[in-house]
Amino acid sequence: MSRPSLAEALFRPRAVALIGASDDAGKTAGRPLRFLRKHGYAGPIYPINPNRPAVQGERAYASLGAAPGPVDHAYILVNTPAVEAAATACAEAGVKVATILASGFAEAGAEGCERQRRIVEIARGSGLRLVGPNSLGVVNTSLPLALTANAAFATESLPRGRLAVLSQSGSLIGTLLSRGGVRGIGFGKLISVGNEADLSVGEIGAALADDPETDAFLLFLETVRAREEMARFAALAHRAGKPIIAYKLGRSEVSQALAVSHTGAMVGSDAAVEAFLRHLGIIRVDHLDTLLEMAPLIVGRAPPAGRNRRVGVIATTGGGAATVVDRLGVLGVEVTPPSADTLAKLRSVNVPPQSGPIVDVTLAGARYEVMRPALDILMDAQDFALVLATVGSSAQLQPELTVKPIVDCAREKKPLVVFLTPQADEALRLLARHGIAAFRTPEACADAIAAYLAWREPTRAGDVDPRALARAASALHATKGDVLDERRSLALFAALGLPVAPSHLIDPAAPSAVLPFPYPVAAKVLSPDITHKTDAGGVALEIATASELAERARALVAVARSHHPNARIEGVLTQPMERGIAEVLLGYRLDAQAGPVVTVGMGGTLAEIYRDYAVRVAPLSVAEATDMVAEVRGFALLRGYRSKPPGDTAALAEAIAAISRLAGLSEPTVLEAEINPLIVKPAGQGVVAVDGVVRIA
Amino acid sequence: MSRPSLAEALFRPRAVALIGASDDAGKTAGRPLRFLRKHGYAGPIYPINPNRPAVQGERAYASLGAAPGPVDHAYILVNTPAVEAAATACAEAGVKVATILASGFAEAGAEGCERQRRIVEIARGSGLRLVGPNSLGVVNTSLPLALTANAAFATESLPRGRLAVLSQSGSLIGTLLSRGGVRGIGFGKLISVGNEADLSVGEIGAALADDPETDAFLLFLETVRAREEMARFAALAHRAGKPIIAYKLGRSEVSQALAVSHTGAMVGSDAAVEAFLRHLGIIRVDHLDTLLEMAPLIVGRAPPAGRNRRVGVIATTGGGAATVVDRLGVLGVEVTPPSADTLAKLRSVNVPPQSGPIVDVTLAGARYEVMRPALDILMDAQDFALVLATVGSSAQLQPELTVKPIVDCAREKKPLVVFLTPQADEALRLLARHGIAAFRTPEACADAIAAYLAWREPTRAGDVDPRALARAASALHATKGDVLDERRSLALFAALGLPVAPSHLIDPAAPSAVLPFPYPVAAKVLSPDITHKTDAGGVALEIATASELAERARALVAVARSHHPNARIEGVLTQPMERGIAEVLLGYRLDAQAGPVVTVGMGGTLAEIYRDYAVRVAPLSVAEATDMVAEVRGFALLRGYRSKPPGDTAALAEAIAAISRLAGLSEPTVLEAEINPLIVKPAGQGVVAVDGVVRIA
Repeated sequence: MSRPSLAEALFRPRAVALIGASDDAGKTAGRPLRFLRKHGYAGPIYPINPNRPAVQGERAYASLGAAPGPVDHAYILVNTPAVEAAATACAEAGVKVATILASGFAEAGAEGCERQRRIVEIARGSGLRLVGPNSLGVVNTSLPLALTANAAFATESLPRGRLAVLSQSGSLIGTLLSRGGVRGIGFGKLISVGNEADLSVGEIGAALADDPETDAFLLFLETVRAREEMARFAALAHRAGKPIIAYKLGRSEVSQALAVSHTGAMVGSDAAVEAFLRHLGIIRVDHLDTLLEMAPLIVGRAPPAGRNRRVGVIATTGGGAATVVDRLGVLGVEVTPPSADTLAKLRSVNVPPQSGPIVDVTLAGARYEVMRPALDILMDAQDFALVLATVGSSAQLQPELTVKPIVDCAREKKPLVVFLTPQADEALRLLARHGIAAFRTPEACADAIAAYLAWREPTRAGDVDPRALARAASALHATKGDVLDERRSLALFAALGLPVAPSHLIDPAAPSAVLPFPYPVAAKVLSPDITHKTDAGGVALEIATASELAERARALVAVARSHHPNARIEGVLTQPMERGIAEVLLGYRLDAQAGPVVTVGMGGTLAEIYRDYAVRVAPLSVAEATDMVAEVRGFALLRGYRSKPPGDTAALAEAIAAISRLAGLSEPTVLEAEINPLIVKPAGQGVVAVDGVVRIA
Repeated sequence: MSRPSLAEALFRPRAVALIGASDDAGKTAGRPLRFLRKHGYAGPIYPINPNRPAVQGERAYASLGAAPGPVDHAYILVNTPAVEAAATACAEAGVKVATILASGFAEAGAEGCERQRRIVEIARGSGLRLVGPNSLGVVNTSLPLALTANAAFATESLPRGRLAVLSQSGSLIGTLLSRGGVRGIGFGKLISVGNEADLSVGEIGAALADDPETDAFLLFLETVRAREEMARFAALAHRAGKPIIAYKLGRSEVSQALAVSHTGAMVGSDAAVEAFLRHLGIIRVDHLDTLLEMAPLIVGRAPPAGRNRRVGVIATTGGGAATVVDRLGVLGVEVTPPSADTLAKLRSVNVPPQSGPIVDVTLAGARYEVMRPALDILMDAQDFALVLATVGSSAQLQPELTVKPIVDCAREKKPLVVFLTPQADEALRLLARHGIAAFRTPEACADAIAAYLAWREPTRAGDVDPRALARAASALHATKGDVLDERRSLALFAALGLPVAPSHLIDPAAPSAVLPFPYPVAAKVLSPDITHKTDAGGVALEIATASELAERARALVAVARSHHPNARIEGVLTQPMERGIAEVLLGYRLDAQAGPVVTVGMGGTLAEIYRDYAVRVAPLSVAEATDMVAEVRGFALLRGYRSKPPGDTAALAEAIAAISRLAGLSEPTVLEAEINPLIVKPAGQGVVAVDGVVRIA
């Protein structure tokens, strides 16, 4: 038997073994045999059970070695303590993939982590690859293969389709199967990836990127465990024209992450992961149903190009359409009335004049002869990037009047999205059969439209100038300890190309009045051990004369010592007073899930409280940084708020791109860096970093 | 025939007339006859049609007068221009209620408004009451009465129940009927209130408050048209123990209302309406499905009392439960792990130790013998105010294992909410039959839990001291024009009991250096025509001496004149420099929908950009004002943020209550009032209003 590819062993195994298959078809360890048979797997199945000659009426084998033929894919169903032996047996028998059901591994404390490390070691030492542990299995509806312990697969038939589901939650593959069934949305492959001890979402996805039976990927994520593999998967899928949609848990971590350090960790990991997914061109949805219902909207499409992001709305129910439009408004999506030209065309097919953004055909009559031409006009119009059709009770009772024209309308022209207000499962299935995205709640519908319009091509990383990097590396060279003080941090930022305020270190015991810049100046205690200088009374502003400086420098040190008796104090750093339009916080951080990210927002406590920050993967281009500046709400103050002068947002974008170059440094690695504040001056006058801190590995 | 009550004529008419009934049962004007017959209305039906002797095979009458008996409720189905004559005929024939189908009234410009005024006049002149215009009709499933043109009522049977639906969107009564059907949620009364030209949501609701067939009210609102009647309805329903849930469109108006005036209109009407609904004890939900699915959670319950707002979670699917828990986190709902005591009890029924807030019974087995005792333990525990049970695929395939224990569990103890991850319509119906709230999306489930926990008793209005009111009225007495300048505004605030900064008016041409307070001072141009003084260069701060004051007062006037050449300048107002922990914006406004409301938030542009304000109906108590202070996120700065000293939040609450007393003034009416800034000093040192403006009717 030839060696199968990873995708073949996973989803098209020529023979499977069920290690620890139970005789009780209702038990979890008994289900895979039952489901494989029920849904008609055609290859040999070898139940492995040393205690019974037969399992569920089929011949069982005492060991893998006793099985009459080779095995591509084994499902290990034994209890946690027996998994290692089973994995070893798989490795020895030349099994290509073993999927492990048991829990009690990395998710279960130190002992579980050690147990997981051992099974990975067993696999690494052989050609064996692992799915899980903690995996509810692998399904390929087209083979068919239902190698799963998920109880939902007791269903009579598997709704086939061309979507691949990769889920970190095992039960969710059953949820999607069940919810998809009634909507007429089917799946090709479904896999519960479990703990991803060996095979990650990314590696499995990459193996399916060229799968001729897969059109798009749905991910249910709790975290990102292997970001390089995820990035490779996204790149391959993008190249193959196969969109990826992700639902990711953890939004509420953001709301919990109120604790703010002074060193850039001002956003929770969820915002970093969101930036990471966006960077890869992966669509993130907010509602669980959207993950399922949105797929037809993006299959076969590329991210929307051009500036037009306007949504047109046609409806047989004004109230129903308003529920979506209101939600779109909350999400910042532009819903616009048709142009005068489009309105004239609508009149010519007897749809009366409309006020507001919803083209309501109720008065003209919710009939095919009204809906069809009106829809065609909206789909042809240049006005809109996307058309939403909202259908009321006719969707349930007379779909031929209002749903059929949607099906018949040539939707290749532009995306067409449908919200059905009644319970109308048949209409949902009809629309799904024709590849039209249809939604049963206004919230999921609006979520999908907003996600589609926000969908972008994968981002190109920013260039990292090797000379700047070399300068930065040499600025880091002589660093001792893991935290750079303000002076060394500013030197590093300067090496990266950031404008930094000049500074001059004085000895508070013997202050020199001769500064290389004019008064007034600011003075700060310089200590690698004091990061919250202001809280420690270590900052003095608006110092006008040399004698005042001498006096206040002594006082600063005295106060700082009273707060931090053991701090090493290297002196008092003086700087000219810098003034601008706003003070900005600019941070860089190596996120555990997403890798290097840059964060920018307004400085000060209010921005901190509202957590109004833009986050992107580093390094990034100036164009991407410009996009970040546009995203921060508080930067309204920089955009010429209420006739105030605008700030130098171009220089701010350059500064963001500059700090993002820290991602290019590898020796030593920068864990966190923060400039707070970066002062933004009026347009044309630049920005300047006046304080900062850097933490290295 | 005795005169029926309003509720009887609306929902239990002894005879109905269909004015303009069409012979074509498929046409809108033909549907009511068809639906009345289909669903078995038992009383006489008089089709009125001057052009045909018979309609849909039934005898028709040329006019109301020709009908053989009196009519309690007529449905006017004629075209817009013919409505007036039909209404007149109803009035003359002694019809008690006429429901009007046609549109083209107040929603259709000035001509439509005038048309609506005329039909209201016809009704007012007689005993006739009107529903609509623009009404899709009135339904009472228990009579049964399907006096409606909503196509959804072509359904084979009406799902009966004890919920009353009052909707400003006609199509939504069909949506709810249809969606309720599959979930086993039925309705008693459904009414499309249309334009509420005469009968409002409030008056119709009040008529049903004592209805023995109604347990709770569901409102679909686009606006609030008659707030006094809405308030009366809410009070009667509350007294009768019948909760009201509202879904209201218009959240996105808030996002549009970025334009901020200087006179208190800093929040869009939606926030005011939200405050109004809360004031009345009406629950507002965010998702359309929640309106329907939440009802069992509140029927027969009062708003949750006590401080415990914690949610406990039991699940057969950890991933499924996490989708709700994540969402609850975003909504600020506290989901907590069981106490040690509860965990011990769970262990005693073989549910293994848990980490995190979700009690996952998967390992113990998703069986009745596991779920039932575990559920009972959570329901009995003092830990939680509410328990959420999330059920996976067994809900669809083996509800006896995991759904039946939920049904059997004594849920009188505390609210029990269910989220079903698969498509499980039968389980939804089973739960509905037992009065248990069950949800099909994690988002609606979390929305309902958050709305339930935020549900409050109707608010008691704050006391208005008649002496303070008399002082305020006299402060307003001599006012000319409609805008009070800063000095008069501050005098009004002082009369209401607000601490205001002392001020002294000087003549810039002949400035007196003798001020009744010490330097440093602030100086501002005083003009009824300049409201944005800072923008007009009309404010000077930190003036240290009398000569500096003289100089800067002249400069202020010169700059102000250059910005506003025609402004009346009354002088320059001086005040001592006031310092505090934060500057707050405090506003009062007569909202078109919600009536008098008070708004409070941080001062400054960032708070404006984030629109972080608390809004309540005025007048309000100090307790309610304290609640507002706790709600504003930016007031973290007043609560001792990052070891900074806390502000005098008690005095701030007193100030909020004081400005809310403006609601007691009637002659003249105050339209808007704003204090900006109100300076909040350290705890114990009070607050002080330093600038403000008032606009009167």
